[in-house]
Amino acid sequence: MIEPFNDEYFMKKAFAEALQAYDKGEVPVGAVVVANGKIIARAHNLTETLNDVTAHAEMQAITAAANLLGGKYLNDCVLYVTLEPCVMCAGALGWSQIGKVVFGAHDEKRGFKKYAAQALHPKTEVQGGVLETECRELMQDFFRKKR
Amino acid sequence: MIEPFNDEYFMKKAFAEALQAYDKGEVPVGAVVVANGKIIARAHNLTETLNDVTAHAEMQAITAAANLLGGKYLNDCVLYVTLEPCVMCAGALGWSQIGKVVFGAHDEKRGFKKYAAQALHPKTEVQGGVLETECRELMQDFFRKKR
Repeated sequence: MIEPFNDEYFMKKAFAEALQAYDKGEVPVGAVVVANGKIIARAHNLTETLNDVTAHAEMQAITAAANLLGGKYLNDCVLYVTLEPCVMCAGALGWSQIGKVVFGAHDEKRGFKKYAAQALHPKTEVQGGVLETECRELMQDFFRKKR
Repeated sequence: MIEPFNDEYFMKKAFAEALQAYDKGEVPVGAVVVANGKIIARAHNLTETLNDVTAHAEMQAITAAANLLGGKYLNDCVLYVTLEPCVMCAGALGWSQIGKVVFGAHDEKRGFKKYAAQALHPKTEVQGGVLETECRELMQDFFRKKR
């Protein structure tokens, strides 16, 4: 069966969010939350715009998704994010008990896998490397231009 | 010299915030951010009220302090919080590069020290155990009544 709404499909939506961040001069990270095959939240990094270190794409997406669902747990949801979540975001995803986290580029420097490997809920599935090249190159391009 | 505005003084202010959370049926954690000896932000846990796992006292306090200061870094600030920060909050405090974190009760189960020991900025000072007994007993009392 053809499955148009696969991980790559939703990661492209997260990537579109990352591009919006890029255009604002923000570190280009984007995220979407999917429930029952539908996107219920979209967000991109806004730390500079909001002067707020907590305004990562994932944090906003978690808040928005919970708000839409009317409950703070996201067990039946999947978060797609273009970069491996940081410690803060992984901690938030842990509290949310989200069903699955799919990320694009690995982040050796700031990613949770190195610094807080047990931050997520034990039942949360994790998959990294979806559209890895595109997600990584967008980040590299951003930091190259900043120098 | 008498120093009325010491760590216990500010922890009591954080404790007063925790009591507000308690009265709302929230896990009783409170926080204040201090800059130049003055409280610039106060917050208490609102995860139930807001249906939002990210609404920990520390997260709100970081956002409020940065908003007041007009910049996202809190290098010259001290955060007082009644409970050892979790992984999420420690990650956020790490991004903020906050000068010092003073917490009340240790949290063996959910505290960052066990799960993300390097989450804070390397220059951030940490002190735990200020008004530990009061802060711990408030938490214990809350969970005893919930059962």
